[in-house]
Amino acid sequence: MGLINVHSFLAGQWLPADDGARAIASAVTGEPLAIAGQSSLDTQAMLEFARTKGGPALRAMSFHDRARMLKALALELGKFKDELYALSCTTGATRPDSMIDIDGGIGTMLVYASKGRREMPDGHIYVDGDLEMLSRNGTFVGQHVATSLHGAAVHINAFNFPVWGMLEKLAPTLLAGMPAIVKPATATCHVTEQAVRRIIESGILPEGALQLVSGGLGDLLDRLDYQDVVSFTGSARTALMLRSNPILLEKSVRFVAEQDSLNASVLGPDVTEASPEFDILVKEAVREMTAKAGQKCTAIRRIIVPEALLGPVGDAIAAKLGTIRIGDPALETTRMGALASAAQKADVLDKARQIAAECHGLTGAPDDFEVDGADKTRGAFVKPMLYACDDPDAAEAVHSVEAFGPVATLMPYRDLPHAGQLMNRGKGSLVASVITHDPSVARSLLMDAGAAHGRIYVNNRDSAHEATGHGSPLPHMVHGGPGRAGGGEELGGIRGVMHYMQRTAIQGSPDIISGITGTWIKGAAKPKSSAHPFTRTFDDLAIGDTIEAGPRTVTLEDIETFAHFTGDTFYAHMDEEAAKANPFFPGRVAHGYLLLSFAAGLFVSPDPGPVLANTGLDGLKFMNPVSPGDAISVALTVKRKTRRTEDYGEVRWHVAVTNQDGDDVAEYELHTMNQYG
Amino acid sequence: MGLINVHSFLAGQWLPADDGARAIASAVTGEPLAIAGQSSLDTQAMLEFARTKGGPALRAMSFHDRARMLKALALELGKFKDELYALSCTTGATRPDSMIDIDGGIGTMLVYASKGRREMPDGHIYVDGDLEMLSRNGTFVGQHVATSLHGAAVHINAFNFPVWGMLEKLAPTLLAGMPAIVKPATATCHVTEQAVRRIIESGILPEGALQLVSGGLGDLLDRLDYQDVVSFTGSARTALMLRSNPILLEKSVRFVAEQDSLNASVLGPDVTEASPEFDILVKEAVREMTAKAGQKCTAIRRIIVPEALLGPVGDAIAAKLGTIRIGDPALETTRMGALASAAQKADVLDKARQIAAECHGLTGAPDDFEVDGADKTRGAFVKPMLYACDDPDAAEAVHSVEAFGPVATLMPYRDLPHAGQLMNRGKGSLVASVITHDPSVARSLLMDAGAAHGRIYVNNRDSAHEATGHGSPLPHMVHGGPGRAGGGEELGGIRGVMHYMQRTAIQGSPDIISGITGTWIKGAAKPKSSAHPFTRTFDDLAIGDTIEAGPRTVTLEDIETFAHFTGDTFYAHMDEEAAKANPFFPGRVAHGYLLLSFAAGLFVSPDPGPVLANTGLDGLKFMNPVSPGDAISVALTVKRKTRRTEDYGEVRWHVAVTNQDGDDVAEYELHTMNQYG
Repeated sequence: MGLINVHSFLAGQWLPADDGARAIASAVTGEPLAIAGQSSLDTQAMLEFARTKGGPALRAMSFHDRARMLKALALELGKFKDELYALSCTTGATRPDSMIDIDGGIGTMLVYASKGRREMPDGHIYVDGDLEMLSRNGTFVGQHVATSLHGAAVHINAFNFPVWGMLEKLAPTLLAGMPAIVKPATATCHVTEQAVRRIIESGILPEGALQLVSGGLGDLLDRLDYQDVVSFTGSARTALMLRSNPILLEKSVRFVAEQDSLNASVLGPDVTEASPEFDILVKEAVREMTAKAGQKCTAIRRIIVPEALLGPVGDAIAAKLGTIRIGDPALETTRMGALASAAQKADVLDKARQIAAECHGLTGAPDDFEVDGADKTRGAFVKPMLYACDDPDAAEAVHSVEAFGPVATLMPYRDLPHAGQLMNRGKGSLVASVITHDPSVARSLLMDAGAAHGRIYVNNRDSAHEATGHGSPLPHMVHGGPGRAGGGEELGGIRGVMHYMQRTAIQGSPDIISGITGTWIKGAAKPKSSAHPFTRTFDDLAIGDTIEAGPRTVTLEDIETFAHFTGDTFYAHMDEEAAKANPFFPGRVAHGYLLLSFAAGLFVSPDPGPVLANTGLDGLKFMNPVSPGDAISVALTVKRKTRRTEDYGEVRWHVAVTNQDGDDVAEYELHTMNQYG
Repeated sequence: MGLINVHSFLAGQWLPADDGARAIASAVTGEPLAIAGQSSLDTQAMLEFARTKGGPALRAMSFHDRARMLKALALELGKFKDELYALSCTTGATRPDSMIDIDGGIGTMLVYASKGRREMPDGHIYVDGDLEMLSRNGTFVGQHVATSLHGAAVHINAFNFPVWGMLEKLAPTLLAGMPAIVKPATATCHVTEQAVRRIIESGILPEGALQLVSGGLGDLLDRLDYQDVVSFTGSARTALMLRSNPILLEKSVRFVAEQDSLNASVLGPDVTEASPEFDILVKEAVREMTAKAGQKCTAIRRIIVPEALLGPVGDAIAAKLGTIRIGDPALETTRMGALASAAQKADVLDKARQIAAECHGLTGAPDDFEVDGADKTRGAFVKPMLYACDDPDAAEAVHSVEAFGPVATLMPYRDLPHAGQLMNRGKGSLVASVITHDPSVARSLLMDAGAAHGRIYVNNRDSAHEATGHGSPLPHMVHGGPGRAGGGEELGGIRGVMHYMQRTAIQGSPDIISGITGTWIKGAAKPKSSAHPFTRTFDDLAIGDTIEAGPRTVTLEDIETFAHFTGDTFYAHMDEEAAKANPFFPGRVAHGYLLLSFAAGLFVSPDPGPVLANTGLDGLKFMNPVSPGDAISVALTVKRKTRRTEDYGEVRWHVAVTNQDGDDVAEYELHTMNQYG
């Protein structure tokens, strides 16, 4: 095949690489493979297209609409995995490496699709946190909400994961209702371009929601404004250059950075050579060093073990590394492929030399290795290199020089505080792992080193079977870290969506807040329903619709009956003297569950109707005790509605139980499933 | 009295101003009042003191300890309000202005003290969000937590609120467990210094928790590292200079900025001259223009009204402004005092001229006013200036030039989208107010302009009596905004504390996560209690202690009895055919509340003991229906304990109800109050 011409996708047009293009070589053969880049890009048109087409179209969709779109997109991409695997091979990636990238990216989209449906409302305004009471009588209250930013999200991605790197940023961005301009690293942008082609061809995204820059970004950053976001993954050096951009600084443009860091793995002091945790550490270390040939920002760079285990751990890891077959990633027998480019190879070898100066090697000469099915000198191959550092307190390079390949340093610690100090010598990391069976070890290291780490991965015999690996960022958990790791955060479920939305504090009357969030709150209007709300369909129920029922007198006989029927003969219900001695009760009182049950008896409409089932309850508070002879009433108010399936949706009701004096007895949120119609 | 020598407080020592000092003049008389500043400061010693003394001491305290400390500090400062009012007068502040600053600052501390107790755990690790299920069998799960940063927080404050400005940053910082170095604006630092003296003298704070720089910061910023935080309030220009600092950029030092902005107030299209909202807008606008002589970052700078109301609103505001008495802030009759300095006065008059060039004035000549009890030319007095801009689409200065004084521009809008566009011309604001009685107006403007605003304050006849005012940041709500407003956030309850903590994603087995958070989670160890947990005191209960009880068979007779007793004769419990037709039920099923009640009957220990009361319940989910003849069992597990009062604390229990096949029937979290001992 000829050279691949990697296109950009700008304002609805595919633009081929032109005179301004850069050549991309195969990582495996070193042969020219593709060209990418334009001599000039109309970056203003690109931004305008995103801001005026993609943004409005996405914002017109609800969170649930966008979540469904993500799911459709993930399923669509799943059909093209084989062609993506094939392209991925040219970047040096083995099939397992490609699966991390391609299947991992698709999986991330699916998690966001699911979280969008479950954790965000079926509307346009995300409610952040609880209602804040700002006044004595409740006529002025506060609520934080979040709405979509009105600009464009610029994603600048690293070369190591051309598909996952795009999708893990794209999923939360689209869910937030923001259009994206994706700029993959040029070295592997031919893989990203193919995924973008399949996305665009599917027609699933609205126009302007996704654009692609293959090659240089031109002056795009200089044209950004405060509603735009830059999200970067890559080296500390590039991040510093980008975040120093005067326009970004002047306009307070959001800049999210995720940088490589000197990630550590610590073996707990509870572990011996015979512990299952010993083998777990060795396995994790070997996997992190060799997966993607160590080109992962989360890979283990420093292995910190109890002094007594330095030798055994070094021997065990070195032995396993010796069995790793290096070669053409297309071969099934290959366990480690090539680095992404000749430039990367040169850089890794240079950095390894800096580390070696403070250490002794455990894996022999860097050039002493075989390559299966490819030319060792033409492809970007290196071997796994493990070093041991005897004096990690004095060493500098092992804590600060990151060889972005299959290189790690083993070092000893004296005691747990020392291990924490060594972890922190990385000056901020994406992740640290702690291999221990003792929760107090994990807790102690979290207290000492948590502030320097975005993620702490603990593994042991209990979790090993299901643990996802030190180096795997999961969509559920934040990915990012302080200091050297860039100070940013990505992913982390809905937290990752918030980077593309603006949080706004809203203050006003309950009716105003309720009108904005679509959720009834205390103090908002409660129009009395003409028909019983249990007789009305999901669609017919209006927020605030209320039915009041009661009163019903609670007698001593009721309490006795309930106690003997249920078996709950707690003294506060049964023994006047003992109940009086309790600080909460004036004497014998009704059971809380008796009140809930009587309240339901008051408000339930017995005949078949749109209410299918009571599925749960939240936030029940008992506020005043009910004594024999008190009479309770109940008010049931439609609080929030969420469509769930084809046939029915969830209704959340506010229930207030009061006594004959109007005092609050209990309040709670009741959940039912209700038919549409 | 002679010149006040304003000291710095560094590493436990009070350092007087020296040769390097700057003079501070009275805002009212223009006479020299104080000197502040050192020719050199040992900033490294200051940082070391914070990091090695203050940080560890604060981190050794629990969140509740720190919250109690904040409360004590607030109460202590309350004793010295009069001396602070007197000093505040010299900055041009009237008594109401000083109350915003001094009482407002103390109130903010009290809110944080209260939120710390209610919303944070009585420990050292803050749990952020819900448990994340990361595996099919639940042996590997995730939880986000936050721990204190290990560095120093540098607070750079504005001149307008020398006390509130310090306390609103100090409260969340100390609650987070981080030491602070406070640098007030020099113009009013003599007020801040006095408050710091009272705090230090109280001995309530641990050594190193608070240091003060009166005067220039020297090279302090160049010595910061990634565990430090800079939190800035002030002008956009100074913010840009600070955030461009190469060390801050290189080390990813957190930088939180809160900048002045061109805040708008919009009158809804639903409002007429006869509406109560008309008067509310006029009152808010006059208050925001004149309180603190308009020197508030949140003050209203742009008043955006329906075209038809431009004249009436202008007349009404101008008339009220005409009655404002300007003068010595110490006089009781004075409604507006002086600006903070002669430099501020010159700047405000210059900016007002730029605005006037696009407008016509509604309040006469800028120099046509009287001053009571002070020399108009020597003090920094200006009058309120209201301008009207007929073509706000073409105008530039009115949307971008901020006169930091009693200056505002009135402008008309055609329709609601136009009003939103004008709001957004500020390019990012701290706050906008919307004066409307119609929730759909508030919602529409939120959708159009929310992304450009950190806070939207809605006021109308329902909330006016209790509303706290357009310009008042409240500790409960975020204070900050995108773009021009700096892109930062402060306050907002616990959100504001998080700026001084690191969020870390923890992954591991349930035992590991439970050991870290001190909260039992599903899958963690459940040692069987030897004694019934209801017979054991708060202190004797261990996390995970479990009692199992049952089985109890639920008969059709039980269901009938319960239905007739409670009145809940919902068809799913009473009518076999109708129940079968329901998608959730196999036929008649037991009431959910019957199951809760029977479960309580199974686990409750009836005799008086340490469990005082069931106070509530959360997260109840009904998972599988119970048919007549099914037998239920229950497991009650100690999930979390929180000390509440002198005598008792809250215990949260996990309750799992299962059937004879081991299927989950229901689960929930039960809350009780338990005696210590």
